[in-house]
Amino acid sequence: MRNIMKNKQPVRVGIVGFGTVGSGTARILLENAGLLEQRLGFPIVLKKIADLDIKRDRGFKVPAGVLTTNAADVTDNPDIDIAVELIGGLKMAKSIMLRAIQNGKSVVTANKALLAEQGTEIFEAASKKGVSIGFEASVGGGIPIIKALGEGLVANRINAVYGIVNGTSNYILTKMTDEGRPFQEVLAEAQKLGYAEADPTLDVGGGDSAHKLTILASIAFGIPLSYPKIHVEGITGITPLDIAYASELGYKIKLLAIAKSEDGVVELRVHPTMLPKEALISRVDGVMNAIYVNAKETGDTLYYGRGAGDVPTGSAVVSDIAGIARGLVCGASPSPGLIQPAGRQKARIRDMGDVRSLYYFRFTALDRPGVLSRISGVLGENNISIASVIQKGRSKVEAVPLVILTHMAREKDVRKALKKIDSLRSVASGSLLIRVEGNE
Amino acid sequence: MRNIMKNKQPVRVGIVGFGTVGSGTARILLENAGLLEQRLGFPIVLKKIADLDIKRDRGFKVPAGVLTTNAADVTDNPDIDIAVELIGGLKMAKSIMLRAIQNGKSVVTANKALLAEQGTEIFEAASKKGVSIGFEASVGGGIPIIKALGEGLVANRINAVYGIVNGTSNYILTKMTDEGRPFQEVLAEAQKLGYAEADPTLDVGGGDSAHKLTILASIAFGIPLSYPKIHVEGITGITPLDIAYASELGYKIKLLAIAKSEDGVVELRVHPTMLPKEALISRVDGVMNAIYVNAKETGDTLYYGRGAGDVPTGSAVVSDIAGIARGLVCGASPSPGLIQPAGRQKARIRDMGDVRSLYYFRFTALDRPGVLSRISGVLGENNISIASVIQKGRSKVEAVPLVILTHMAREKDVRKALKKIDSLRSVASGSLLIRVEGNE
Repeated sequence: MRNIMKNKQPVRVGIVGFGTVGSGTARILLENAGLLEQRLGFPIVLKKIADLDIKRDRGFKVPAGVLTTNAADVTDNPDIDIAVELIGGLKMAKSIMLRAIQNGKSVVTANKALLAEQGTEIFEAASKKGVSIGFEASVGGGIPIIKALGEGLVANRINAVYGIVNGTSNYILTKMTDEGRPFQEVLAEAQKLGYAEADPTLDVGGGDSAHKLTILASIAFGIPLSYPKIHVEGITGITPLDIAYASELGYKIKLLAIAKSEDGVVELRVHPTMLPKEALISRVDGVMNAIYVNAKETGDTLYYGRGAGDVPTGSAVVSDIAGIARGLVCGASPSPGLIQPAGRQKARIRDMGDVRSLYYFRFTALDRPGVLSRISGVLGENNISIASVIQKGRSKVEAVPLVILTHMAREKDVRKALKKIDSLRSVASGSLLIRVEGNE
Repeated sequence: MRNIMKNKQPVRVGIVGFGTVGSGTARILLENAGLLEQRLGFPIVLKKIADLDIKRDRGFKVPAGVLTTNAADVTDNPDIDIAVELIGGLKMAKSIMLRAIQNGKSVVTANKALLAEQGTEIFEAASKKGVSIGFEASVGGGIPIIKALGEGLVANRINAVYGIVNGTSNYILTKMTDEGRPFQEVLAEAQKLGYAEADPTLDVGGGDSAHKLTILASIAFGIPLSYPKIHVEGITGITPLDIAYASELGYKIKLLAIAKSEDGVVELRVHPTMLPKEALISRVDGVMNAIYVNAKETGDTLYYGRGAGDVPTGSAVVSDIAGIARGLVCGASPSPGLIQPAGRQKARIRDMGDVRSLYYFRFTALDRPGVLSRISGVLGENNISIASVIQKGRSKVEAVPLVILTHMAREKDVRKALKKIDSLRSVASGSLLIRVEGNE
């Protein structure tokens, strides 16, 4: 390791990917160079930015010689200490990261999809080579949640990590809630405004939240990256009607990513969730993110902020660069790291069927004597007890919504009951369930 | 520096002070030793706990030979790497910290009063000796706000740090708000329940919040510890009447510690503040703390959790121990540190008279024609314009409350106007002001 401090040499950074987050990162490194040097005690210098498009104006000046179209000018450059991967996607990003690692560089990334789906290989390579992987920007944008969970709460036994980690979904649900408008209409508007991608599947389908949950759970519980084991539901089935009923019952609907650990068994799930209106997290609206950590020692802590955006996410990237640079400067070998393939305990993941929760059901049923009795009969047979019922609007001819809130029930029983109820002649098919978090 | 890693030797810790936080810290180090070793890759061993009272049962078992009544068994012990000061108070705590530093030990403390009032001397001594000072536990209990501000947001230019940092005051205000009861009554109850000290001055008078603000502002703005320059008001003058008016106007009253920086000039103030009910921070109730950071790059982030308590605060102490231990293990010299006496820019603190704010005034005035006109006349003469007025309850004989909300006004002008209004024959003396945060 160069003794950078003694030689007053700067720590040298190269970025691959000059898109949204790449621009935010470069901008901070260039514009806040003086501030960073003052705070760290040594300079950080941006040596290279590689992107196929180096012509487009990003709104700030890049020094001559920094831009390149060749990623190898970063990954293979002996004059670069830290490689920053910000191109996104899986295959190319992975080969760039592995290449940089092979060349002895520490790597910083915002790529939650890659880390969640193929991170084990990357962390193994880094561990073998003795370099660090920084990924603060992969969850919660500018919120320093990775550092909080892995370092600030290092002394804690974590019971649960849960929160709103996808800004696009939260923006859409907030608009639907505030304006009573349907999903498709709000999504189209969000796409026009640039808050949702042309293909919004990863955001509104819950996949992005699951990627982030994979990373959070691995740090919190010391388990391997368990993306394929997460139960994932998105927000596409949420209707203004359910939002209105939720409100009447004292709840808001949010897309939550939830990881809970109990007696060594971990629950991992992403789904729309009804939360008590008075809960702090119910006030987290628009594109904002918020992550709760519940720990045996510290109880609840909450981390709130902008979960996306060029400069907020760039702030997280630069905090990783600064952290790794500090280690390089003082000649430290990289810390064991937060996610390590070796020595991690095997995960025991609870089957979704065995998860217990409170439930909201919305049935569409004929308004005839005996229907409620039949439905509640099926629920009872399946060990599901009813906490409250709402039935509004009467019609002799049309089916009307029937809403039921349950006490704690088991997912497996719920699915069985709903299947049976959907087959009743007086009930329309497609009964809807939303899980409810809150105290019984 | 010992190469601890190579020799598989543990990092060795000694605690001085076996009170509330000392017990929480020791408990975590003992009970979570395995978890910490797994996460850090090396063991942390609690070698000594020094306290005058080593007889009292703290509810967990301490290994033989660890307890001592002699602080020098920690500060002068060559077998201890990190000394933890948790006795509180100023003089004795300072001499223990300086002694440990002189002996080449890094120091971890929760002592906000000492750091805020005499920290410069301690940080200078540590800097000279090349050791670290950890003080995560000094602000926000178990919330990792120091790490978030100093490391997670290291790339950010901070505009403002503000929040609820005193649990006792927040508990009292919450009870007053929820139950409409007066300050003295709720305080007495809080004292009975152990939520307030026998002498509550430091908590309800705002001094404790000012200590914490001193530390936050020094990190956020790179200014020296500026405790004596903080404008401090406590909650002792808040009445159920003002809380009721605030509620009617859409606000809640919280004791806020506020640090803002604008064009290099810093505002530092602690006072009761009216906050819009719908703001996230207005939902922070009971003993909970929450700190907002507003930064140019990341916008708003919020950090929420338990601001006090044995184990939550112990969790912060142990996270500092772990951080410093990581550095020792890898042979790193201590990082430049978050608060450094050398190289810090001089603080330019705004005089309180020049602070601009929105204001709530409550006058007690005779209900006669012309009184409002006289009061608003005085306000107008002093460049204070009125946003709204509430006058309730009519009486021919008694003075009645008259509430006025202002647009943005200057503190200096406000004080002048209130002095003049208090001298009017139709107004009782002792007019009350509460500053209001929110958008105009």
